[in-house]
Amino acid sequence: MLVRPKAGILDPQGQAVEGSLRQLGFAVGEARVGRVVDLELGSTDATSARAEVERMCEQLLANPLIESFEIELEDV
Amino acid sequence: MLVRPKAGILDPQGQAVEGSLRQLGFAVGEARVGRVVDLELGSTDATSARAEVERMCEQLLANPLIESFEIELEDV
Repeated sequence: MLVRPKAGILDPQGQAVEGSLRQLGFAVGEARVGRVVDLELGSTDATSARAEVERMCEQLLANPLIESFEIELEDV
Repeated sequence: MLVRPKAGILDPQGQAVEGSLRQLGFAVGEARVGRVVDLELGSTDATSARAEVERMCEQLLANPLIESFEIELEDV
């Protein structure tokens, strides 16, 4: 899943990346930095897997006040 | 772009996520934690945009010794 700072929320890490890229000579607009978490699940059912990952995000992986999350499922 | 720890490289953040999820009662396999960086570029040409982002990753955003990166371009 991808966890990103919500729009309008200050993102100091993104600002640092922007500043450093510009100092290196890259012409960039806004940069935002989030996390990607790759997880192996036992479940073979997409609906229940998605619901479980949603609970993980809400309980641990994302701060709902300042972050939004996006879930992608993949068969392996 | 997505920046992830390479396979075989120790990922303490991923291990912490795994441990915490199990303590919360989730049955999960391996967890790996990386970064997602969203950037606005001026370039309208996909080939040159990709090449530019590759240079950014090599010079700043990823540590090539321990991390791999993946670039996704999007029109906005």
